[in-house]
Amino acid sequence: MKKVFACLILITSFQVFGQTDSILVRKIFNEALSNGKSYENLEYLCKKIGGRLSGSPQSLAAVEYTKKLMESLKLDTVYLQPVMVPQWIRGKKEIARVLKSRKHGALNLRICALGNTIGTGEPGITAEVIEVKSIAELAQLGKEKINGKIVFFNRPLDPTKINTFQAYSGAVDQRSSGPSEAAKYGAIAVIVRSMTTRLDIYPHTGGARYLANVPKIPAVAVATIDAEMLSGLLKTEPDLKIFLKTSSEMLQDVLSYNVIGEIRGTEKPDEIIVVGGHLDSWDQGEGAHDDGAGCVQSIEVLRIIKSLGIKPKRTIRAVMFMNEENGLRGGTKYAEIAQNKKEVHIAGIESDAGGFSPRGFGIDGSDEKIAKITSWKSLLAPYGVYDIARGGGGADIGPLKSQGTTLIGLLPDSQRYFDYHHTSIDTFEQVNKRELELGGAAMTALAILISEKGL
Amino acid sequence: MKKVFACLILITSFQVFGQTDSILVRKIFNEALSNGKSYENLEYLCKKIGGRLSGSPQSLAAVEYTKKLMESLKLDTVYLQPVMVPQWIRGKKEIARVLKSRKHGALNLRICALGNTIGTGEPGITAEVIEVKSIAELAQLGKEKINGKIVFFNRPLDPTKINTFQAYSGAVDQRSSGPSEAAKYGAIAVIVRSMTTRLDIYPHTGGARYLANVPKIPAVAVATIDAEMLSGLLKTEPDLKIFLKTSSEMLQDVLSYNVIGEIRGTEKPDEIIVVGGHLDSWDQGEGAHDDGAGCVQSIEVLRIIKSLGIKPKRTIRAVMFMNEENGLRGGTKYAEIAQNKKEVHIAGIESDAGGFSPRGFGIDGSDEKIAKITSWKSLLAPYGVYDIARGGGGADIGPLKSQGTTLIGLLPDSQRYFDYHHTSIDTFEQVNKRELELGGAAMTALAILISEKGL
Repeated sequence: MKKVFACLILITSFQVFGQTDSILVRKIFNEALSNGKSYENLEYLCKKIGGRLSGSPQSLAAVEYTKKLMESLKLDTVYLQPVMVPQWIRGKKEIARVLKSRKHGALNLRICALGNTIGTGEPGITAEVIEVKSIAELAQLGKEKINGKIVFFNRPLDPTKINTFQAYSGAVDQRSSGPSEAAKYGAIAVIVRSMTTRLDIYPHTGGARYLANVPKIPAVAVATIDAEMLSGLLKTEPDLKIFLKTSSEMLQDVLSYNVIGEIRGTEKPDEIIVVGGHLDSWDQGEGAHDDGAGCVQSIEVLRIIKSLGIKPKRTIRAVMFMNEENGLRGGTKYAEIAQNKKEVHIAGIESDAGGFSPRGFGIDGSDEKIAKITSWKSLLAPYGVYDIARGGGGADIGPLKSQGTTLIGLLPDSQRYFDYHHTSIDTFEQVNKRELELGGAAMTALAILISEKGL
Repeated sequence: MKKVFACLILITSFQVFGQTDSILVRKIFNEALSNGKSYENLEYLCKKIGGRLSGSPQSLAAVEYTKKLMESLKLDTVYLQPVMVPQWIRGKKEIARVLKSRKHGALNLRICALGNTIGTGEPGITAEVIEVKSIAELAQLGKEKINGKIVFFNRPLDPTKINTFQAYSGAVDQRSSGPSEAAKYGAIAVIVRSMTTRLDIYPHTGGARYLANVPKIPAVAVATIDAEMLSGLLKTEPDLKIFLKTSSEMLQDVLSYNVIGEIRGTEKPDEIIVVGGHLDSWDQGEGAHDDGAGCVQSIEVLRIIKSLGIKPKRTIRAVMFMNEENGLRGGTKYAEIAQNKKEVHIAGIESDAGGFSPRGFGIDGSDEKIAKITSWKSLLAPYGVYDIARGGGGADIGPLKSQGTTLIGLLPDSQRYFDYHHTSIDTFEQVNKRELELGGAAMTALAILISEKGL
């Protein structure tokens, strides 16, 4: 093996911070780990309220609960921001049955309807199935081979991606765009392999987006183990048929709310730093990692600040955004109102990647802002938060981008996220107390650094 | 707040590696994540064999199983290394009952005997309890207050330590030395708060060490929730009594084995790099994180090397050490034989901190060796393995230190380790496939870098 070696001297300039900075960060982590409330708040959100799909009674109970939680912190303001949200309902337990396969006889697949999709109607539908690995493959097959059939998207997540969100991004087009793309070629329904790195028995739901001017067709996610089995069956029995019955539907928009609480800045109250997560979740589990964690961590940021008696120079505001999962109406409304009020948001920090050990922050902002945040790395690295990198943000804070806000996403360890994502097992039990607390502390530390030093 | 800022220019020299190095590391991780076998091997070890206390039938089944596993890899050598090990048995389910407290009446505490301890005898013992927070406090109280009583060690792990192993180190003297230290003052038994960062219902066992010339007294661990309750009761009822009954005992030493497999180096076969974990575990759970994970990862190192067709320059040897938990006889014997054979171990890499996402390696070695390994950081950091630091190694490879071996410990994320450590819930279900695989890949990458570049 011939090896090329080169030598490079990197001159890296680190700001070495005064003791006060590192002591302050230490105090924040100590408070989170010794007196943290995020874990018990998450337990309430998951166990007493549960899944919180936009427009559901649970989502309104979550609005009420988080508002009261923030009121108990004696913040400068706590208020609700009304926003109309779509109201999609899953309806009865979905059925997908392979009819009389030669290998197994009739058998049921573990499925669930994708968010925002229509149902099959009461009689259900029965059709042959055609398996594809990509949207591109639809065009190769053409209308002749797809018309009247159920399209089965079965491209797995790439296991070699170290960050599982990259694996997810590389496969999720099948779920979000697959239904309408298949409908263009006459498909009558879509079955999508669940978006998870594991082989498991849980169908992972998630949003699908219908294109205008294309017929809306029913679409479901199938558990990965069942996807493997179905794929195997289709190899020997390409003519097998599936009976599919779902009763999901989109109802009228209804009124809901973003929940907002803030600590006003002492020197520059008009410069706002938002910390947030989304309060809605899918209906199947308890919305623990997605995104109860982000909500209770954001409230924890304010609790820690109050508890340590910190008077931040700039305003720090926690927002529980509504409707990230199937509409993003909360995030969109929040940015619209901020624009109308001419509020200045210097940074948004979102936690929407699970309540796991924090490893860093991903930043969507100018080189200058990224360099400034990176200069604080030595303050955060002792807590395992070492990965400050370009790229990130969060769906809910995304609409603030056009206002020049630097968007920052908390980056937790990603390995376990898609084990639970959008399933019935995204429950409180899957969240580790210390991991959740470390994430909230990391957000607090960064929010305070931005508040005290500007951005 | 007055802040002191200083500016420092750090000149850091990085070796920039040839493509071949980074491609090789990439291949190792791809193989682990795409075709990994460590997870299914761990399932067998946990579910078909289970807890594997030294000397137990299960420990011998594990010897047999891992030997066969390595034989199936077509290594250059696979063999057993005989070693006599202590055989401690827990006996019947332990009982600790608070007798007629005024608050609750009689109630049972969730306890388990500490490893290596003697039992109470069939009648059990009944005595008053005195709570202490430290061994030092025993001397302050003196014989007068301790004699004839059960000493209750109740100092919690410090939650503010970011690395939970530091919190463990700061509390574990109560478990390992507490029994003999209390016996010096006439205590007749010891109850120790479980060594975990959580409040939970599981007693966490672990080894105690009796001092020579001090009476041996029974000692148990109590679940942290029950420790809190007992402490509360003692505040209002300092005279309450506890009935304690355990039947653990130390039997005669028995024959067991270290299990060894190796791929011989092509250029410097006499320079050995050991990768290892310990095959024995406590009896309560399945020894999944502690340390089935380290064993299957070490075997995975060899499997990946074979599977990729790598012919390492130096010898890479996997060792499943026996008896780490209650004697360290396997590690001691291994080093003794290495010494006798005049084998040269240039490095030992141990995985005994759980099958969680790898974050780095801790090194016990010279500045020069640490600098050399640190120079490879840019090859490992893309996989989340960024924390190359002084300090570490592992219990089993520890005895090689006097032979000049550089000792290296895999550092996984530590947040969840003490949730499961030494309990009935250290089971296969608590291990995440990808996290386990990433750890094995990180070990492989480092072993190969040392093999190809020397140390």
